Amino acid sequence: MTRPLTIWTFDWVPQGPRGHVRDIRLRWACEEAGLDYQVRSVPFRDRGADHFSRQPFGQVPFLEDGEVTLFESGACLLHLARKSEKLMPRSPKEEAETLQWTIAALNSIEMVSVPWWFIGLSNDTGNPLEQWMFQRLERLEAVLARREWLAAGRFTVADILMSDALRVPKVRAAGDFPAIRSYVDRACARPAFAKAYDDQIAHFASADR
Amino acid sequence: MTRPLTIWTFDWVPQGPRGHVRDIRLRWACEEAGLDYQVRSVPFRDRGADHFSRQPFGQVPFLEDGEVTLFESGACLLHLARKSEKLMPRSPKEEAETLQWTIAALNSIEMVSVPWWFIGLSNDTGNPLEQWMFQRLERLEAVLARREWLAAGRFTVADILMSDALRVPKVRAAGDFPAIRSYVDRACARPAFAKAYDDQIAHFASADR
Repeated sequence: MTRPLTIWTFDWVPQGPRGHVRDIRLRWACEEAGLDYQVRSVPFRDRGADHFSRQPFGQVPFLEDGEVTLFESGACLLHLARKSEKLMPRSPKEEAETLQWTIAALNSIEMVSVPWWFIGLSNDTGNPLEQWMFQRLERLEAVLARREWLAAGRFTVADILMSDALRVPKVRAAGDFPAIRSYVDRACARPAFAKAYDDQIAHFASADR
Repeated sequence: MTRPLTIWTFDWVPQGPRGHVRDIRLRWACEEAGLDYQVRSVPFRDRGADHFSRQPFGQVPFLEDGEVTLFESGACLLHLARKSEKLMPRSPKEEAETLQWTIAALNSIEMVSVPWWFIGLSNDTGNPLEQWMFQRLERLEAVLARREWLAAGRFTVADILMSDALRVPKVRAAGDFPAIRSYVDRACARPAFAKAYDDQIAHFASADR
């Protein structure tokens, strides 16, 4: 008997991040690939030594796959991608393309968009990352104006990461980028996203009772 | 006849970034693994449509491996890691550990340290990412205080990315983190790093003549 994959997330989070906690990326990938998984929780309020031993930055998610455990949503997605061609094509050229856009989401977009968003939380005027943020989105807009999905001519794990980074409300409102807007709409219209999203909302809501 | 790997970088950069342009990560990985490679250049000053078609954000490096081309230093390193166990162990548990720390370098450390550094260039007082930056380094310090290398009990591709992120002079001077300091010293003492570093310095210096 194979044990199902276990996605670990918080037991509860405030309203703000609900729908955006990164376990959604793992849920979404499992739903796309039809992988069997369960979700378990660690305390949000009291992050103990056990949590830090599994995620040294005190974050979620982390993934258990038999004897293998790993943290970092990007790493978890690349791990899951080995289990299903639906997440990542197997031809060397298309696989490399998928890998490059997966990392681009993490290190070219989120490396700017996440700190830009973070600074914006407490600073309404003069975000020092504003220009950099717009340059990155302009470049991505030019790419997405010419294609439906980022890699290999079809939906891949790279689109899970990139669209999840781009669907953050403040990022979506950051400028007039119609190709990015359509891309995020396309991604969020997928049944696997809807299932992952609804399940995350329900998971955190159940802790309110 | 197999064609050697081709690492693409700029033909020239100002003094400041020399030794830190990210082609060094690819050079370093090839040196560690004993992979045959050549280095070619694209113009730094006039980045044309050809450059943007190969690297949509106008950056370097990108990698050519026969029919496969890819950008993003992190993606290039994971691609190279498939060619040599020296870069990434092959047991599922150790491979997952290497993957998670590779992504942690890109999305938990650089996602904070790069914008923190960038803001510091033009802003001497009150960096809005200061506290976040220190929290991340504190967490990493606790990890590195207990191990020599990040994953699998030995040097891997994750250490190339992480130590390259941490050896940035302003990051090194960011606080009193002795385990991080020793870790970076250990990584930079490797002959493969020295070769990659010297070659990059010579590459850009040759364009000064």
